[in-house]
Amino acid sequence: MKCLILLSGGVDSATALHWAAREHEPIAALSFRYGSNHADRELACAERQARTLNIPHRVVDLSALAPHLSSALLSGASAIPAGEYDEQNMRATVVPFRNGIFLSVAAGIAESCGAQGVVIAAHSGDHAIYPDCRESFMQAMSRAIELGSYAGVQLLRPFISMSKAQIVELGAQLGVDFSHTYSCYCGGERHCGRCGTCRERREAFLASGVPDPTTYEA
Amino acid sequence: MKCLILLSGGVDSATALHWAAREHEPIAALSFRYGSNHADRELACAERQARTLNIPHRVVDLSALAPHLSSALLSGASAIPAGEYDEQNMRATVVPFRNGIFLSVAAGIAESCGAQGVVIAAHSGDHAIYPDCRESFMQAMSRAIELGSYAGVQLLRPFISMSKAQIVELGAQLGVDFSHTYSCYCGGERHCGRCGTCRERREAFLASGVPDPTTYEA
Repeated sequence: MKCLILLSGGVDSATALHWAAREHEPIAALSFRYGSNHADRELACAERQARTLNIPHRVVDLSALAPHLSSALLSGASAIPAGEYDEQNMRATVVPFRNGIFLSVAAGIAESCGAQGVVIAAHSGDHAIYPDCRESFMQAMSRAIELGSYAGVQLLRPFISMSKAQIVELGAQLGVDFSHTYSCYCGGERHCGRCGTCRERREAFLASGVPDPTTYEA
Repeated sequence: MKCLILLSGGVDSATALHWAAREHEPIAALSFRYGSNHADRELACAERQARTLNIPHRVVDLSALAPHLSSALLSGASAIPAGEYDEQNMRATVVPFRNGIFLSVAAGIAESCGAQGVVIAAHSGDHAIYPDCRESFMQAMSRAIELGSYAGVQLLRPFISMSKAQIVELGAQLGVDFSHTYSCYCGGERHCGRCGTCRERREAFLASGVPDPTTYEA
C-alpha cells in the first residue's frame, strides 16, 4: 500500500519507517515542527532515518499553532518535570489533541499525494494519561479519516499490540540505527536520562536485551 | 457550555456564532488562514461578526499547510470553475480533509482554553461530494475528539438537519447582518455570482424569503 509514515525521530517511529519500507510502499515520511523543545534534534534524526532508506522526508511547519496550545513541552526545557513518568509529571507535557492534529494533517496530505495509508507507531505502552494515544481514540480517528477522505485513507497501527521493548527488538532485526534516534523531552545534546521519555527509552532497551547506544547524562 | 465556534465569515458560520451567543457561552470564534483565494475578505467578515457580539476572535495561521495540499481553492481565482455546483466543478475546490484538520486544531485549542464544546455550522445541504462535510464523518470525528481530549470535548452541529435556506431564516431572526458575510470562492471585491458557493448563497436567500443584501457581478 502507498503510505505516509509519521516520523518523529524517536525509537518507535524510526522502527515504523523501516517496517513500512519492508511491508508497504512509502511515499514520504512526515515530521511536524510545532515549537517543541526537542524539535531540532528530533528532526535531524528523522531526516537521517528517511535518508538511509531513500524515502522523501517532508517537514510540516505547525509552529503557528504553539501560541494557541498549552503545554510544558512547548515552554522551554526548564518546564519539563524530572523523575518518574507518572501521571502528574506526564500531564504537564501533554500537547492537547496532538495526535488528532498530526493525523488529520497527514490524512489531508495522503489524499493530496495519492497515499492510501498513514502509519503511526502507537504502541500498547502508550500511557493512559495521553487520551489521544489510546487505541479507543485511534479507532475513532481511523474511522473519521476513512469516512472523510475520497480514497478511504487507512490508519495503520502495526505496533498497537506491542510493548516498546518489542519495538526495539523488531527495530534491531530491521537494522534500525538507534544511535540516530532521539527521545529526550529536554532537547539537550545528550539524553538527560531523567525525564519520562528518557526513562522509557532506557527501560525498553534493557528489557529487550538490545544494546542501548545512547549516552545519558544521568 | 463554554465553547469555540468555527467562523469562516460566511452565512452559515455567522449564524452559528449568533446561535452560540444565545444558547451557550462562547469563549472565542476561530478562523483559519490556510492560503485560500478568498481568505482576506472572509476573515474581515469573521472579525466584524465576532466584534458585533463582543466575542474574542482568533485567527489560526495554517498557511504553511497549503504547499502540501492540492486544491483549486489554494491555486488562485482562475482555477475556480464557474457554472453549476456540480460534482466535477466542486471536486476541484476540495481541500483534502479540511474539516478534519480544522476540527482537530479546534479541539486542541478547546482543551487549552477550557472550552467543553466546538460548534461547526455543517448543514443538511452540505454536498455529498465533500466527504468531510457528511454527517457520517462528523459523527466519527465527534467521537475521536471526545475520546482524545481530557475534557471529553463535544462537537456541536446545531444545523445538521437544516437546509441553508433555514439557516438564513434563523440568522435573520437572530439579527445577523448578512451584508458582512462573504461566500465567493473567487475572492473578488464583489461576489461573482457564478461560482458554486455564490449560487448556493443566492438560492438560499431566495428560498428563505429573507432579502439578499449581496451585490453579485453576474
